[in-house]
Amino acid sequence: MIKIAIIGASGYSGAELLKILLNHPHVEIKNLYGLSTVGVKISEVHKSLRGMIDLTIESFDENNLNEIDLVFVALPSGESMKVIPKIFEKGIKIIDLGGDFRLNDLNEFTKYYKHEHSALDFLKNAVYGLSEWSENEIQSAQLIANPGCYPTSVQLALLPLLKNKIVNENFISITSYSGTSGAGKSATQSMIFSEVNESVRAYKISSHQHIPEIKQYLKHFANSEPNFSFVPHLLPVTRGIYTTISATVKKEVDENLINQIFEKEYSKKPFIRLLKNEIPELKDVVYTNFCDISWNVDENKNLVLISTIDNLIKGAAGQAVQNMNIMFGLDQTLGLLKCTEKKW
Amino acid sequence: MIKIAIIGASGYSGAELLKILLNHPHVEIKNLYGLSTVGVKISEVHKSLRGMIDLTIESFDENNLNEIDLVFVALPSGESMKVIPKIFEKGIKIIDLGGDFRLNDLNEFTKYYKHEHSALDFLKNAVYGLSEWSENEIQSAQLIANPGCYPTSVQLALLPLLKNKIVNENFISITSYSGTSGAGKSATQSMIFSEVNESVRAYKISSHQHIPEIKQYLKHFANSEPNFSFVPHLLPVTRGIYTTISATVKKEVDENLINQIFEKEYSKKPFIRLLKNEIPELKDVVYTNFCDISWNVDENKNLVLISTIDNLIKGAAGQAVQNMNIMFGLDQTLGLLKCTEKKW
Amino acid sequence: MIKIAIIGASGYSGAELLKILLNHPHVEIKNLYGLSTVGVKISEVHKSLRGMIDLTIESFDENNLNEIDLVFVALPSGESMKVIPKIFEKGIKIIDLGGDFRLNDLNEFTKYYKHEHSALDFLKNAVYGLSEWSENEIQSAQLIANPGCYPTSVQLALLPLLKNKIVNENFISITSYSGTSGAGKSATQSMIFSEVNESVRAYKISSHQHIPEIKQYLKHFANSEPNFSFVPHLLPVTRGIYTTISATVKKEVDENLINQIFEKEYSKKPFIRLLKNEIPELKDVVYTNFCDISWNVDENKNLVLISTIDNLIKGAAGQAVQNMNIMFGLDQTLGLLKCTEKKW
Amino acid sequence: MIKIAIIGASGYSGAELLKILLNHPHVEIKNLYGLSTVGVKISEVHKSLRGMIDLTIESFDENNLNEIDLVFVALPSGESMKVIPKIFEKGIKIIDLGGDFRLNDLNEFTKYYKHEHSALDFLKNAVYGLSEWSENEIQSAQLIANPGCYPTSVQLALLPLLKNKIVNENFISITSYSGTSGAGKSATQSMIFSEVNESVRAYKISSHQHIPEIKQYLKHFANSEPNFSFVPHLLPVTRGIYTTISATVKKEVDENLINQIFEKEYSKKPFIRLLKNEIPELKDVVYTNFCDISWNVDENKNLVLISTIDNLIKGAAGQAVQNMNIMFGLDQTLGLLKCTEKKW
Repeated sequence: MIKIAIIGASGYSGAELLKILLNHPHVEIKNLYGLSTVGVKISEVHKSLRGMIDLTIESFDENNLNEIDLVFVALPSGESMKVIPKIFEKGIKIIDLGGDFRLNDLNEFTKYYKHEHSALDFLKNAVYGLSEWSENEIQSAQLIANPGCYPTSVQLALLPLLKNKIVNENFISITSYSGTSGAGKSATQSMIFSEVNESVRAYKISSHQHIPEIKQYLKHFANSEPNFSFVPHLLPVTRGIYTTISATVKKEVDENLINQIFEKEYSKKPFIRLLKNEIPELKDVVYTNFCDISWNVDENKNLVLISTIDNLIKGAAGQAVQNMNIMFGLDQTLGLLKCTEKKW
Repeated sequence: MIKIAIIGASGYSGAELLKILLNHPHVEIKNLYGLSTVGVKISEVHKSLRGMIDLTIESFDENNLNEIDLVFVALPSGESMKVIPKIFEKGIKIIDLGGDFRLNDLNEFTKYYKHEHSALDFLKNAVYGLSEWSENEIQSAQLIANPGCYPTSVQLALLPLLKNKIVNENFISITSYSGTSGAGKSATQSMIFSEVNESVRAYKISSHQHIPEIKQYLKHFANSEPNFSFVPHLLPVTRGIYTTISATVKKEVDENLINQIFEKEYSKKPFIRLLKNEIPELKDVVYTNFCDISWNVDENKNLVLISTIDNLIKGAAGQAVQNMNIMFGLDQTLGLLKCTEKKW
Repeated sequence: MIKIAIIGASGYSGAELLKILLNHPHVEIKNLYGLSTVGVKISEVHKSLRGMIDLTIESFDENNLNEIDLVFVALPSGESMKVIPKIFEKGIKIIDLGGDFRLNDLNEFTKYYKHEHSALDFLKNAVYGLSEWSENEIQSAQLIANPGCYPTSVQLALLPLLKNKIVNENFISITSYSGTSGAGKSATQSMIFSEVNESVRAYKISSHQHIPEIKQYLKHFANSEPNFSFVPHLLPVTRGIYTTISATVKKEVDENLINQIFEKEYSKKPFIRLLKNEIPELKDVVYTNFCDISWNVDENKNLVLISTIDNLIKGAAGQAVQNMNIMFGLDQTLGLLKCTEKKW
Repeated sequence: MIKIAIIGASGYSGAELLKILLNHPHVEIKNLYGLSTVGVKISEVHKSLRGMIDLTIESFDENNLNEIDLVFVALPSGESMKVIPKIFEKGIKIIDLGGDFRLNDLNEFTKYYKHEHSALDFLKNAVYGLSEWSENEIQSAQLIANPGCYPTSVQLALLPLLKNKIVNENFISITSYSGTSGAGKSATQSMIFSEVNESVRAYKISSHQHIPEIKQYLKHFANSEPNFSFVPHLLPVTRGIYTTISATVKKEVDENLINQIFEKEYSKKPFIRLLKNEIPELKDVVYTNFCDISWNVDENKNLVLISTIDNLIKGAAGQAVQNMNIMFGLDQTLGLLKCTEKKW
């Protein structure tokens, strides 16, 4: 059994992580650590967990991690950089669900996260855990920077095509729509039901912190530096991300070629579902670790790529457990889904 | 491994049943049978199942069940009475998620289900599978009539109090609110999104087919025949039932006594969560097999009982799997949830 | 033209009041007063009003009301009792949308509103503005206490039957479901979209401040003091109240008698729609000042009464304008709806 | 008073049209004509209209239009082309809310609408009623082809920029999100609440019938023929369209220039609200005839244009009434909104 501690389990990603881990056959959850909720039972924080788990949230002390094999960190930006170096020094494996260790350009970090970075030295230790694209590095990593929700959705669709140089890189339009759980549990007037329901709104146009993350890893994985526009929107649903990407492809490209590229890249990846001649629906991926992808090329060589995930699962806790499975040499689907053979 | 066949897997309960069984450690799904969808892959009917299961729906023939240990039947009323006798004669265990074998009064059946019953002889073979109230009978049953969603929610809250004779039986008001998945997948104008969203409506006042079911089993389990009013409503959510029951209690009754009654009845039941001094929220039970129950007695001895479940899980597929576990001598929570000890 | 000032226009009722008054042919909105938003344009507070109204919120001073014929007050409980006496002394007409002047029993006020009352002397000056039941008093009133949303919905359905003594008063069950706009615009964690969406919850069981209001006015208008239970619930919709009332009726009562009672009471009331042999749907009343009412009596003399309104219109701003029309001798539907003759 | 007949009032646009016209001070609704609902009261078709209008739907006969000044036609594609020529010949004014008279290229019509056109000769008589862009032609028109919902939203945002040649026309990405009322009232499985709620899906990628309409009128009004991709999506809300347009602008273009262009074009248009330095929210335009528009240019000269309307009002019935007002020489806001002076 892998012995687990979680720091910061009181948010929505934390709740999802607990639910997944409780059903994982090789995991034992030993300790929960928190900041504002020390002394409270986790089942009081997440009432849906009553009857499933009985642990009380403790104050974090890195000296109490002797038994622990892996620590999941789900803290706000700025907080995880304070605790992770201390855990790392003890030789314990770590998966960070936050954004502190994803960017290697500190100017970008400061510009988009609006605060300084206090653990520069540790950046080099982090492996970016986009499971389908860094499996080898994840296997031997001690510290995983788990990808953001939007970047997961965007990159899984774009990387194969950029890597194969079939998209015109002068302009790619990315519009993403996210459910409200991505905004967390804080009480802000703009997030109350009456303000969100029966509405839609774009936000953080050209200033979202996932823009530099997408930029860095398109380059890292596909050696591509396209000019792109990223517009996140808030949807009146609790869970899920729906990303629509529009671009033009090179003259000789047709849907068949794209089929081949996606099949080559993803045919052995259990959580990628390729929807040839179909269009994904958000409802088919929520509460799963799947990413559904479709593509369409019109007569003018305009490409429409669609990618959809559950922001809390493939976009956070599910991918984190997928990464844990890889780190510990387990079947990567363990605890996430019983997959039968895929034949599309 | 328990070898399973499912007849009628193309509805919402069927999809839920498949998802639960795919994650059950002791189950192997061998065959799926259907009526209108023969020859179609189940993952085309329920696109959320792509990559999880690859079976094709077959035409039902009871002579092909040789390998099968248990058949789940999820057919519309009137259909399951046609196939179940044939399966029963082969000595195979059956769990029927429909209403055909729940009522023992044929007048009531005809009045509320609006058609005749063609398998009268088999009624006596069926055990009503309200798991928390018929565990012993379920263990030795060959045919389980799995309870309806509303009756599950209503009875789990009312039975302990009626059994203990603390409620005035001259009048009990039951109002239940259900998500739309309870109405199935048929295309009817009154169920399109634009007609249901941002709305609420009561329906089938004093004519819902769950009324005689509630009546029969309140008598069966609690020896009680109260006068009650049952008003079902349609909620603009996909899943879940929220039941609010109002009545008066006898003069000497207070909340403490009700605490004791519920604790005595349910303290060892893993899927009942008693919310002392709290009020259930629908969101805490959806996607689980839990039933959350609360109670409140005011200064005038007016009682408010609240009970909430996921209509597709505890109200259908989950309770069916719980019953399967009991029938096969397994831990009843297997495949449903990893429960730690309960201490409220 | 009736010259209007509004104090406290930054809430949801305030926005609705502005929209109605902007379309009222005999009204001119002269001043908007506020507490926390002084100096801000109302169209910045309610962005939906951009292009419709250009007023800036001012600090309230009762000495600047010389031109004003009527002041609407939409302040939190405790605030309106501070300003209303000052306005009243100037002889100006007032409609208070809050709860400060609805109760005549100060013990009840303190118990349910959780603070003291500072304007006891003014209670006697207030007329409760349930338009259909106090038209004469409203005509000559200077100060109207506009009814609460739940009490409007409950009383409009119950009063005719209680007045005619056909309901057994030993126990009446009232369950009401409200949209989230009833909870106002404050940022609280329990009201964020992720906590409310796809959920339902009861709240304030036997402690809601509308309980004494219902009690007082059932007595006032119908001379009836039934024992009732009132359970409010929060619905995942923005607007509207759906109330289901269950009780038993006297042996000789049938649906025909109830038809007659309702028709006698309401046939000339333009905003009451009687749904004989139908069931109301919330969507048919939102964005209107209508109250739709239905009734059903089963073979055991159990009565189900349903009543539904828009909480912000008939439950607040719409009824306030209806009362204004009555106070100023106008057609009570003016600005609210062009009603043709009613023939059900 | 303008005497009105409506053909096809049983859909969602018809209901909206009735609500607007009932509140219009210069209009009298004389007759309602229908196909499948002849003999039924309109208040039975749209129950929200009970108590507001009492007309019965009649069978259409063009010889009974003697009194009528204007006919609104809200029929499915293929149906309006059958009746409109007959009305036109009688010299009566017509506003067609459908798509039959919007396209002048019959190949495009047949390709996208999937059926033949039977009234070719009448195409030349129709004026495309995008109110803000064809006011003069509308004033003297007898037959108005009222624009589609998506094209209204898209064109109102794009036309000023295309007309001023500041956008690179090699590729424009248009993603639009629509509420479900745009899909009408038909019962189809894919539109039931359980399939739409908590989901999003793109549809008709590169095959939506609004693509040729957008193409034709971008050329007509802005003399521009850009290469664009249009991806419509279905949102889990009842009403509204939210359009996000991404493109690149020419090197010298900045937000200030775009401010000037929009102000020049729209400063006198009462239903266009320009949101400088803000982002539109769908909730602020639903139930209004407004179109809210914003723009953003990033450091790489990527442009994000957002445009949002109510699909049933500015995208259908509201713009139709706006066009009626223009045709009859009335203030174009009459019956739609009391607008005060606009100063952004």
